[in-house]
Amino acid sequence: MGRLLKYWGWGHEGDGLDSAQTRELLETFRTLGIDVTDDGTFPSLDTLSLVASRLRPPQALSTICTSDRYQRILHAFGQSQPDSIRLYQGDVAHAPDVVAYPKTAEDIQALFDWCGDVGAALIPFGGGSSVVGGVTSDVGEGYNGIVTVDMSRMNQVLEIDDVSHAARIQGGARGPSLEAALKPSGLTLRHFPQSFEHSTFGGWVATRSGGHFATLYTHIDDLIQSVAMVTPAGEMISRRLPGSGAGPSPDRFMIGSEGALGIITEGWVRLQRRPSFKLTAGFRFEHFFDAAKAVRAVAQAGLFPANVRIVDGVELKVNGAGSGGFTLMVVSFESADHPVEAWMSRAEQCCRDHGGTIDVDWKDNPEAHLQGTVGAWREAFIRMPYNREQLTPRGIISDTFETAITWDRLEHFHHAICTATKKAILEATGNPGAVSCRFSHAYPDGPAPYFAFHAQGAKGVLLEQWRAIKEAASDAVIREGGTITHHHAVGRDHQVWYERQRPSLFGDVLAEAKKQLDPNGILNPGVIVR
Amino acid sequence: MGRLLKYWGWGHEGDGLDSAQTRELLETFRTLGIDVTDDGTFPSLDTLSLVASRLRPPQALSTICTSDRYQRILHAFGQSQPDSIRLYQGDVAHAPDVVAYPKTAEDIQALFDWCGDVGAALIPFGGGSSVVGGVTSDVGEGYNGIVTVDMSRMNQVLEIDDVSHAARIQGGARGPSLEAALKPSGLTLRHFPQSFEHSTFGGWVATRSGGHFATLYTHIDDLIQSVAMVTPAGEMISRRLPGSGAGPSPDRFMIGSEGALGIITEGWVRLQRRPSFKLTAGFRFEHFFDAAKAVRAVAQAGLFPANVRIVDGVELKVNGAGSGGFTLMVVSFESADHPVEAWMSRAEQCCRDHGGTIDVDWKDNPEAHLQGTVGAWREAFIRMPYNREQLTPRGIISDTFETAITWDRLEHFHHAICTATKKAILEATGNPGAVSCRFSHAYPDGPAPYFAFHAQGAKGVLLEQWRAIKEAASDAVIREGGTITHHHAVGRDHQVWYERQRPSLFGDVLAEAKKQLDPNGILNPGVIVR
Repeated sequence: MGRLLKYWGWGHEGDGLDSAQTRELLETFRTLGIDVTDDGTFPSLDTLSLVASRLRPPQALSTICTSDRYQRILHAFGQSQPDSIRLYQGDVAHAPDVVAYPKTAEDIQALFDWCGDVGAALIPFGGGSSVVGGVTSDVGEGYNGIVTVDMSRMNQVLEIDDVSHAARIQGGARGPSLEAALKPSGLTLRHFPQSFEHSTFGGWVATRSGGHFATLYTHIDDLIQSVAMVTPAGEMISRRLPGSGAGPSPDRFMIGSEGALGIITEGWVRLQRRPSFKLTAGFRFEHFFDAAKAVRAVAQAGLFPANVRIVDGVELKVNGAGSGGFTLMVVSFESADHPVEAWMSRAEQCCRDHGGTIDVDWKDNPEAHLQGTVGAWREAFIRMPYNREQLTPRGIISDTFETAITWDRLEHFHHAICTATKKAILEATGNPGAVSCRFSHAYPDGPAPYFAFHAQGAKGVLLEQWRAIKEAASDAVIREGGTITHHHAVGRDHQVWYERQRPSLFGDVLAEAKKQLDPNGILNPGVIVR
Repeated sequence: MGRLLKYWGWGHEGDGLDSAQTRELLETFRTLGIDVTDDGTFPSLDTLSLVASRLRPPQALSTICTSDRYQRILHAFGQSQPDSIRLYQGDVAHAPDVVAYPKTAEDIQALFDWCGDVGAALIPFGGGSSVVGGVTSDVGEGYNGIVTVDMSRMNQVLEIDDVSHAARIQGGARGPSLEAALKPSGLTLRHFPQSFEHSTFGGWVATRSGGHFATLYTHIDDLIQSVAMVTPAGEMISRRLPGSGAGPSPDRFMIGSEGALGIITEGWVRLQRRPSFKLTAGFRFEHFFDAAKAVRAVAQAGLFPANVRIVDGVELKVNGAGSGGFTLMVVSFESADHPVEAWMSRAEQCCRDHGGTIDVDWKDNPEAHLQGTVGAWREAFIRMPYNREQLTPRGIISDTFETAITWDRLEHFHHAICTATKKAILEATGNPGAVSCRFSHAYPDGPAPYFAFHAQGAKGVLLEQWRAIKEAASDAVIREGGTITHHHAVGRDHQVWYERQRPSLFGDVLAEAKKQLDPNGILNPGVIVR
């Protein structure tokens, strides 16, 4: 409680870039040829034109429901580029009529029943950090209203099992509070998506979030022992197990269902002891694909570093962390059990084999993660979610998309994606803009490339410009064999490409499952199943 | 081709225990109080009473179909205890009418169409190694015949990607032949279920098989990049990716579908370089649960050994590998990339911390895996599948079941399972028999306990005695929170308990999916969906 969350940007009112940081960010964009001349501010709450709520909750639900203006606008959007543009343009026509704060699975079931009865759409809402329109309450025609279900009152760590290293956590628990609850036990989930502060455990499960670990246990999928999901047809609760081979996995059916089949109310997760041995190193590579080869070598060596990421010159430059003349590779190992020098030594050799030179040395250097390009990029990474609220009002498009591809196709894929995206930026805006790439995660069989693009747009047509670029990039990702998302999820923004990607028969299976579990079709319409 | 497969036991005619090994096996059973006085042999092929085939394939399918007597009987059973007993009793009334050998996905589709038209059940058959009735062609009433589809002619490794360490493999490829095809590339799938010689890649995917690795990549699930499955409604082919976050995983829907939703025709798998650094150690523990604690310590240390298994005194004794007075723990590390001494040193410390003493030392000992109790048990392990064909004709029940449970519940669980199983053996046979336990796999959050039971049965009622014990053990597993199978699969034998285990709404989803993908309900009736 306490401080208000911004309805117009990331995090709480008062948080964000200070004026020096903003100046620096804009200066960087100027070096990319994005000449920031314009200025502007997001509309204030009272100037936004909001229609009256069309829904009135039944008496029994009235204490957990509100149609407060701030709440309705706060819950109208997630954190995507089009969300930011639309809010800037004052477009809140689709805001939910009611925001509900259930305290129990029974509350949720009652909300399902009510929405089913009155023909309202229901949008599950965790931390609201979706960058793909997953919580944007824009459900099109055919509904008599919209209820957004905010899970923040179901936010407890209910049980900790310090023998099996596991915990039972409610869907609405945010990253910092769940870690705080685990801390006295010496255990940690250690799942740190970039949205960590303002995203929830249930949201992570629903969207297959990607966390801190760049190898091995990357997705929340791998940290799940069991899931409880409430659907309009009843509860689906899987058995708590360390492993199973009994039929298709019910967990993997619920994980990634993005609020279209039910709401994740709780789950048992796998924890680990808080790491006490940590090493980080930074290496520089002249060429991006040499760095990629070093990542492949480390990923295929079976060393399982906590971190093995590369960031290209453009991304370093955009974030004020490098000249643009080299690719950075960050490698970290951590353990609660044993020193990790043997692991790091071998990883360093893999880097040197492919031409890497030291940016930050790991030897006898517990502060390595804070130093050199590694430290500069780390700081920028933490600040990144705040950038957009400075850029949208200045007519700058600045967005990211991420995917995964096997190593054999990487170079061609990277070239095709960058070319398609740059071409679309030029066509849409008349200026070249910039496209950068990093690897957010790496597997023995391929990396998860994470692209960013930046363009000087024109305010009146910013949404159309963004859409043209996004479509070209997404078309290229699907055409060249990638996945439309490695960890950002499908949401409304990726649904078209998701449908092209998934086996069409599997789409039929999901559509039929939705009919069973959500017979009135009220749950997060337009996401996963249309 | 060449040597005939046994219709009455494991592997090829001519393979099996020699007379000394048989004597030794029976001698061991005598020490357990199982007094082997009886003798017998499996019925010869020509004495089995087989009804005439009820089906005649259409002309277009005639070249890939046979109603040959040997083929029909060979395909009537898998390798379960009841399979063995029924064959011994000459009960082959349910043998398939036709055995088909498709060469292409189109052949399979044509078989689906034919079976749908004539109302025949269709049983997908990989290597026939199911120990849970997964290929037993006993489908009950309601079908006009049975066609077993043997995948052995779709057995090629179609592509190898030595950059991403991946390969595309057909469903009918058996372990040894697929590894032989991979060998020139220096890569290996390194998935070695105990059935390796006589099971197939498609069978592994369909049943979520558990392999060589005791930690980390235990199930075939983790080695899959993409799957192609043919269903009566068409093909379901997932995209080849190192990772994805796009909706519920289509792979995890096909993996574990046990031939009830379609036939796995091929898949892309994750490979690794053949290991050149290997270390094995053996430790003895006075108490089973101390050994379990050492396994937990190693599993929670993040060391990811290739092997970390414990075998209790009873199991060692049964297999002629120990006195019965201690529990054995085997730990192995392997790598294609780096020496693994640092890993093993830490694992040894974990064992010593919990009272382990050296059985076989790993230091400067490349032959450790062949020595001491480790080597003796390893030999017994390889021989195990051949034991049953000696025991069934002598009226001895000897079966296994496996599960998984979190560490916090292990001791209670183990006690409850052993107690229930021993009680059932005594009640069913009048003799105490024996129950043993090992861990086949271990995770940071819990082990996969693997139980064996042995009882002196009476030939005329062997099936009923087995069933009474099996039911009691399975009831206990489900009641105490375990999974009905960690890697043996559901099949016909576990279906009742699987239905109790899975979320009932998920059962509904699978039933609806079956209606969509297999509208005539011909595929492996009685398995996964009834």
